[in-house]
Amino acid sequence: MAGNPERRASLVDAGVEVLAREGARGLTFRAVDAAAGVPVGTASNYFTGRDDLLRQIDVRLHTRLAPDPDALAGLMRRPRDRALVAALMHDLMGRVTADRTGYLALLEMRLEATRRPELRASYTESVRGELTFGMRFHREAGLPGGDETVVVLYLAMLGLILEHLTLPGVLDEILPGVAVPAGLVERVVAVVVPDA
Amino acid sequence: MAGNPERRASLVDAGVEVLAREGARGLTFRAVDAAAGVPVGTASNYFTGRDDLLRQIDVRLHTRLAPDPDALAGLMRRPRDRALVAALMHDLMGRVTADRTGYLALLEMRLEATRRPELRASYTESVRGELTFGMRFHREAGLPGGDETVVVLYLAMLGLILEHLTLPGVLDEILPGVAVPAGLVERVVAVVVPDA
Repeated sequence: MAGNPERRASLVDAGVEVLAREGARGLTFRAVDAAAGVPVGTASNYFTGRDDLLRQIDVRLHTRLAPDPDALAGLMRRPRDRALVAALMHDLMGRVTADRTGYLALLEMRLEATRRPELRASYTESVRGELTFGMRFHREAGLPGGDETVVVLYLAMLGLILEHLTLPGVLDEILPGVAVPAGLVERVVAVVVPDA
Repeated sequence: MAGNPERRASLVDAGVEVLAREGARGLTFRAVDAAAGVPVGTASNYFTGRDDLLRQIDVRLHTRLAPDPDALAGLMRRPRDRALVAALMHDLMGRVTADRTGYLALLEMRLEATRRPELRASYTESVRGELTFGMRFHREAGLPGGDETVVVLYLAMLGLILEHLTLPGVLDEILPGVAVPAGLVERVVAVVVPDA
């Protein structure tokens, strides 16, 4: 395996681009080479195969879509109430909207995982890890609601992100005067998270 | 356009199969012909193009995934309380689990819609039509909760269905003793729908 870390990172980002633009079936080493603007054959020196590339894309998107540590630290100086939960969900929505390509690539990975048991195993572990991290974070931060609240909030945000990134017109003015996505994030938190 | 309705229906179902198995990019007339077991060139006599095929797949899945009228009528003889909302959501989850291929094809269509404006317009209209139908149904049936309840319930069920059909292991025992998906459907309804 070739070892230039910058080259590797740019190939992984090119893979994200190809996944979102072409779908999982379009993700070939040749397409990644083309998207990264490197000679044909380069990607095959950096990844043992397509599953390896998909795993590295997963790891990379974990970083690309992670909260900004300073922004998060700023938020966590606030009272541990429902308004803070809403602020954290706005932050999440802002990140996936700003990196729409990255999140669409994650959705392509989900569908690809239905076809590839090895990818399903590693990707399940990574998504489950994020969810259990979120549950622990919520508990330890003393935010309102228990594990059940966090799981239902996670599912509603997953649905909202999926809808908003793929078919945004479905939710437009579905509740009069409620803006998409910010107003809907507020309504989800108001319905799911106890006011305590 | 050729007009044999049974042949057309079997080609559309073959298209659903190809979408779920190969992803949107694998959906070619040739692949549909092969999946339907008909001579190469048959699909091109039935559809004006790929967008036409995708629209007909959308219409077909609307029917395939619709509730059974007798089952629905039976449910609607019950009191209009939160337990009935849960029963309706169990019915929905049962349908998408029984026709997993059909629902995975709808998810592929969502991602394909991000790339094809014409498909996005027609698919947005069909998904929005289902959501507004659900809101009206809920209201007219006198079920507990208002439009906001229905929208948040829709989003949480969308997230739950996406997770369960693509990465079922993520939710397995995420809440101790809560079975996936039935127990999670119960918890979603309990959190989102008022007990009235």
